Amino acid sequence: MKQIESIKESGGYLNRYEHDSTTCHCKMSFSVYLPPQAETKKVPALYWLSGLTCTDDNARTKAGMQRYAAEHGVAVIFPDTSPRGEDVPDEIDRYDLGQGAGFYLNATQSPWKKHYRMYDYVTRELPQLVESGLPILTGVKSISGHSMGGHGALICALKNPRSYRSVSAFSPICNPLECGWGKGCFGAYLGGDSQTWKAYDATLLIKEGAKFSDILIDQGTDDEFYDEGQLLPESLQAVCNAVSQPLTLRMQEGYDHSYHFIASFIGEHIAYHAAALNT
Amino acid sequence: MKQIESIKESGGYLNRYEHDSTTCHCKMSFSVYLPPQAETKKVPALYWLSGLTCTDDNARTKAGMQRYAAEHGVAVIFPDTSPRGEDVPDEIDRYDLGQGAGFYLNATQSPWKKHYRMYDYVTRELPQLVESGLPILTGVKSISGHSMGGHGALICALKNPRSYRSVSAFSPICNPLECGWGKGCFGAYLGGDSQTWKAYDATLLIKEGAKFSDILIDQGTDDEFYDEGQLLPESLQAVCNAVSQPLTLRMQEGYDHSYHFIASFIGEHIAYHAAALNT
Repeated sequence: MKQIESIKESGGYLNRYEHDSTTCHCKMSFSVYLPPQAETKKVPALYWLSGLTCTDDNARTKAGMQRYAAEHGVAVIFPDTSPRGEDVPDEIDRYDLGQGAGFYLNATQSPWKKHYRMYDYVTRELPQLVESGLPILTGVKSISGHSMGGHGALICALKNPRSYRSVSAFSPICNPLECGWGKGCFGAYLGGDSQTWKAYDATLLIKEGAKFSDILIDQGTDDEFYDEGQLLPESLQAVCNAVSQPLTLRMQEGYDHSYHFIASFIGEHIAYHAAALNT
Repeated sequence: MKQIESIKESGGYLNRYEHDSTTCHCKMSFSVYLPPQAETKKVPALYWLSGLTCTDDNARTKAGMQRYAAEHGVAVIFPDTSPRGEDVPDEIDRYDLGQGAGFYLNATQSPWKKHYRMYDYVTRELPQLVESGLPILTGVKSISGHSMGGHGALICALKNPRSYRSVSAFSPICNPLECGWGKGCFGAYLGGDSQTWKAYDATLLIKEGAKFSDILIDQGTDDEFYDEGQLLPESLQAVCNAVSQPLTLRMQEGYDHSYHFIASFIGEHIAYHAAALNT
């Protein structure tokens, strides 16, 4: 793990690292915001998973969360959204499959299965890496994300409820098996048997018995991808109601799918996670 | 003036407009953040001038000021940094001259003088436009900016002390006649007689008698352009000391020239301007 950039922000440091990932079998980059408190003690961490087409750079540049992380003494880990590199398969004509579109799952099909293992990367390799190499508390972590990354946050938390203190999401893909993005990609990554897809669908995970203490979701009502039926928060709400899974789904009037929406509510999300992480 | 985009953020709206500028003789775009208070009353405005290579988009995306503007009930006006378009002269091999590099002055030399009139645009045409077409109070305005835009904010305020309630800057070019950027551009825009350049140099304006109630400047100590001698805050400090012009110059340890630096302190700047605007 090699530090390749460091920028002071809000009293802490926004650093970028690269390393040879044993999970994804390629060089991976990620960013970490270390709040000022990390200079004198280990701090808890929030993992932020970004959406389609993003790298680790989008959220750290546009979401405006570093100031809140500094206020609450929480580190933020920004992984990339897929494996990268010339040796990594891609579909250059598609933004929703291949590089920038890992969907936070472990692919089982060729040509994807060697590198596209973002689920293991985010839940296992990356935490071990940052907890061993940076002033970050072992095992005290929460997770959030946007769109495809909101989907990633939900499945990581639901599949590992003891590993995360809290979970939230902005505009998440709640039920990928029923939307165009999921239908168009899960088959490529996971093969034709849609039974295997259910392990990466938050709505279906809850239907099959997965539980988490609480789930916070913000969804804008003027979100074009919500209108297209890509996000389906109502499906998640229905299944949570059916099995009494706590869900705070806030339909935010007039907001779209952009980082301007995230920036509007990220302070509340950071405070929500900090309350779980700092107890 | 035609609205071409509207995005909800922090309870208000981030809008983009375009219009045919009678000052710059071309189509100009700009953005305005209208805080939620603007739905029921006219609000004061902060003009934000961006730096070299920027458009109106950079600060609205990366500086994170909308949430503070919403909190304080202040509109933020984001002009472009130069005239634009195929008919507008440019130096495509240079980032510091031509489009994206208007230096907030009125050019007097060919081929620049027809379009490059950003000083008049920012101080006259744009305020008239937004005050007549949007819920923005007439004549209740402040100004701030970054780098070339910090220079712009300082000269606009110093040359029009009754027009602005307050002025601040991040990493401003304080003394363009003595730095590479100014020496390399002012001649092109203003001609060989450097006496005419003094009208657009904050340090020299103060030396020649310009006054403003107070000036707030944040400058990072790890700013590469500060190290290169492009910014020269010490020159401004020296002349302010000599003529008893109030100046709060904060050398911020370890910060660079980026938007991460701006994001770290923009909340304090918005509060500073809001205090002047809301009295």
